[in-house]
Amino acid sequence: MSTRGQPDTESTDDTTDPGSTGSTGSTGSTGSGPTVAETGEFGLIRAITRRLPVGADVLLGPGDDAAVVAAPDGRVVVTTDLLVEGRHFRRDWSSAYDTGRKAAAQNLADVAAMGARPTALVVGFAAPGELPVAWAEQLADGLRDECALVGASVAGGDVSSAAGIVLGITALGDLAGRAPIRRDGARPGDRVVLAGRIGWAEAGLALLRAAELPPEILRAHAEVVDAHRRPHPPYALGPLLAAAGAHAMCDVSDGLLADLGHVAAASAVWIDIDPTALPVPGPIRDAAAVLGADPLTWVLTGGDDHALVACLAPTALLPAGCVVIGRVLAAPTHVGPDGTRPDDRGAGHGVLVGGLDYRRGTGWDHFRQVT
Amino acid sequence: MSTRGQPDTESTDDTTDPGSTGSTGSTGSTGSGPTVAETGEFGLIRAITRRLPVGADVLLGPGDDAAVVAAPDGRVVVTTDLLVEGRHFRRDWSSAYDTGRKAAAQNLADVAAMGARPTALVVGFAAPGELPVAWAEQLADGLRDECALVGASVAGGDVSSAAGIVLGITALGDLAGRAPIRRDGARPGDRVVLAGRIGWAEAGLALLRAAELPPEILRAHAEVVDAHRRPHPPYALGPLLAAAGAHAMCDVSDGLLADLGHVAAASAVWIDIDPTALPVPGPIRDAAAVLGADPLTWVLTGGDDHALVACLAPTALLPAGCVVIGRVLAAPTHVGPDGTRPDDRGAGHGVLVGGLDYRRGTGWDHFRQVT
Repeated sequence: MSTRGQPDTESTDDTTDPGSTGSTGSTGSTGSGPTVAETGEFGLIRAITRRLPVGADVLLGPGDDAAVVAAPDGRVVVTTDLLVEGRHFRRDWSSAYDTGRKAAAQNLADVAAMGARPTALVVGFAAPGELPVAWAEQLADGLRDECALVGASVAGGDVSSAAGIVLGITALGDLAGRAPIRRDGARPGDRVVLAGRIGWAEAGLALLRAAELPPEILRAHAEVVDAHRRPHPPYALGPLLAAAGAHAMCDVSDGLLADLGHVAAASAVWIDIDPTALPVPGPIRDAAAVLGADPLTWVLTGGDDHALVACLAPTALLPAGCVVIGRVLAAPTHVGPDGTRPDDRGAGHGVLVGGLDYRRGTGWDHFRQVT
Repeated sequence: MSTRGQPDTESTDDTTDPGSTGSTGSTGSTGSGPTVAETGEFGLIRAITRRLPVGADVLLGPGDDAAVVAAPDGRVVVTTDLLVEGRHFRRDWSSAYDTGRKAAAQNLADVAAMGARPTALVVGFAAPGELPVAWAEQLADGLRDECALVGASVAGGDVSSAAGIVLGITALGDLAGRAPIRRDGARPGDRVVLAGRIGWAEAGLALLRAAELPPEILRAHAEVVDAHRRPHPPYALGPLLAAAGAHAMCDVSDGLLADLGHVAAASAVWIDIDPTALPVPGPIRDAAAVLGADPLTWVLTGGDDHALVACLAPTALLPAGCVVIGRVLAAPTHVGPDGTRPDDRGAGHGVLVGGLDYRRGTGWDHFRQVT
């Protein structure tokens, strides 16, 4: 874990404990206290790592060239994401704490989606020198608390300077002897099962993007807005669905249709979603009413909630907390109102809604016609 | 491995094979061919992954929520670095290929510095839409070729958009039953051993920074300039030094004195470097002559070559390719020309050069006095 950059300003002064301004605020402001440049690279590392307890799976934590993490299975699940300020998060929309929760969550969910138990994160952190150290500390708190939900911890990392904040998060996990649940195992006849929320983060993002909305509207829809800031992946259901015999699984990061599209393509099957089985909770309907939006579109296409979707044999017993939302087909069975079939393009795989193509924007769109 | 960003432009078109302009050029220009925005996120992923053969340790490669990598030891060594354009690399100084080599090298070296064998990388890649796909392809080639030196491979990754290029590299490794070699195990009486080059990358950077230098000077010192672009860590010597009984080890990423300073602090010892034992090769002396610089300063303080330094018992047998450059002391033994001792500050640990303090800038500086 090198900490060297070409033009980095370094200082060995350790000016820490800057007085956090609260870890769950809804703005990116962290107010007073020293900046990253004032504290220096090694002071920053100390400020962060002192907030990060090392869990049982971390055999050697921060402070060396590399960390050592338990991999009792003899294999390790690994996934990585970059989060770039202004692209993946905004400091005026999400607190440092929530950014840490979300950054951890999206990687831990990827581990769970393989049917594995997350064990550790390593975190690359680049930031401008004027960033308050308190922001980095609250980020660390968010990473720590999200990891704690699954018994994982931050094993190490790297800090450097950049014009904007960048996070590089890598999560590790253990399969406990099970096969990883891939995207390419769905079989015709399988049930499609959803665990966790979908549409919430997209609804929250839509509210935040509606710049003309007064603050009291955002406050009235806080549950939805907060869903953008902090997902709630159903981590425990990943290994449980694997143990239940899932043939395929993924997390919903790009949207239900998009991610099931990846499963369908990898498995060379059709996946038919039953729109009447999809949960569309009241808070999402209410947010949609404010914006004149279609809540089902959010549910079908909104990402960033990190739900899990899995395909299991119809005889499989399902863990509590799952909803059957569709089935896997060898081929489409319906004919659209204009006489075309979903597979007229010859893809040989795809995702259907109510047996028919779902398309946004142009073309016929069965689903939008019936909502 | 989510690929979702809030404002990302996505396309499912796959326009690839853009005609690389050569993989080892010394400029960042990659010329013609489609851009990342034209190819789209998934086309970019395909363009990159098709260049990345999956090695024997990668049990499940790119294309799922996470990869699965062998961890036969039951533990996994993990290290991560962020590389930010303009901070850690410049496209006008380093080719995409060399940037890939260097990004992989600095992480693989961290794994080797624990005494482990690198098994896999995962790579986060963020770039502006106008970046030529060829640049990303050449980066992938560089990652691939550096990994191949140690039998590792790229197991997976993540792509997204950003104003400048950002790389998040995570390396994994296997300890093969050995204890990880930490920084805190150096013991008084140990020999300090160097494997690999030091001072080269710093000399090359100094030449590149000297903006007034004509191109023919850079060409005449190509070996030194290239050392900045692409380090040559002595990977195999990491596990060999571990097997030889190294008590402590680290890679030289921040500079010999700085990194040995971390070893000395963690081990609560003094490390005394013998300046006459340090290699100062002709190309570094020649580069120093051009700039009127002190080559020994580069050797003592220059980073980014990713040599390995280790502390071993004086009776230990050393693998070929190592040089003894100093020894570990319980306390300083020399008195400086002004009558002060190195430990007058009461640190209780530190790095000495020829038995005395080495300080840049102010204060007495034995080492500069004798060179």
